[in-house]
Amino acid sequence: MVDILHRVGVENSSPEKVYDALTTVEGLVGWWTDGTTGRSVGRSGSTGVGEVIEFRFPPGGFDMEVVEQTPSKRVAWKVVDGPEEWVGTTIDWELRQDGDYTIVMFKHQGWKEPVEFMHHCSTKWATYLMSLKSLVETGSGAPAPRDVHIAFPD
Amino acid sequence: MVDILHRVGVENSSPEKVYDALTTVEGLVGWWTDGTTGRSVGRSGSTGVGEVIEFRFPPGGFDMEVVEQTPSKRVAWKVVDGPEEWVGTTIDWELRQDGDYTIVMFKHQGWKEPVEFMHHCSTKWATYLMSLKSLVETGSGAPAPRDVHIAFPD
Repeated sequence: MVDILHRVGVENSSPEKVYDALTTVEGLVGWWTDGTTGRSVGRSGSTGVGEVIEFRFPPGGFDMEVVEQTPSKRVAWKVVDGPEEWVGTTIDWELRQDGDYTIVMFKHQGWKEPVEFMHHCSTKWATYLMSLKSLVETGSGAPAPRDVHIAFPD
Repeated sequence: MVDILHRVGVENSSPEKVYDALTTVEGLVGWWTDGTTGRSVGRSGSTGVGEVIEFRFPPGGFDMEVVEQTPSKRVAWKVVDGPEEWVGTTIDWELRQDGDYTIVMFKHQGWKEPVEFMHHCSTKWATYLMSLKSLVETGSGAPAPRDVHIAFPD
């Protein structure tokens, strides 16, 4: 088992604001992908434990089941559909305030092997975390299909 | 043992050009840090196996021993001085051409524990790989102290 780990600090924010960007379709659309829909939530609605969020990108997508939402502290998703390497992996977000920064600790855990696609996803996650940081700090992120390209296809 | 893995594709380049950016002080200054010096090489000179490169940043730095240089294919460094968590770890670069892209496979291996600093370094490496990509593609990177900030201090 190998993991993708990242950390960013969101300036002049709060754990509440970052939590909102991770648990509402409106927030997720702002930093990850335009193609975000919740099967049981509207575009501006909040996600909830047990619900499945569908994230779609030009090359494909992922369905994530929300497995934990602890307000302003932790969000966890389990991948229930998508690329073979992703299915069964978990994505975990932990939030805390440290001075002027909201610290976001990110883990994409449970990869079976450190395949080339995992290297790609690690770098790509970093660019999406920077998009999340930018969204919360400035109101503007870089979600797909306006995302930062690191190779091709991505 | 846990690793940081990344991958970028450098467009309209060649493994030779990326290799040069990893094995000359002039190249390293262009994407990683202004504070790059080789104990036995000049600013425009090439690095060589067994030599130590000193990388300095506003918050500190690393001394790396070059352990492998296979032209246009692979570069490996071992950290011989720097933060405690880094000493003894290895940084490995593999290059290959795939269509219009030079694929850069990156590994920072040998971390003892997945500490918070490792999460930070993973994201920071991604931004420096994007700086390397930009340097080779456009002639302009974002080396320290003009680097992309992801938190504080970094």
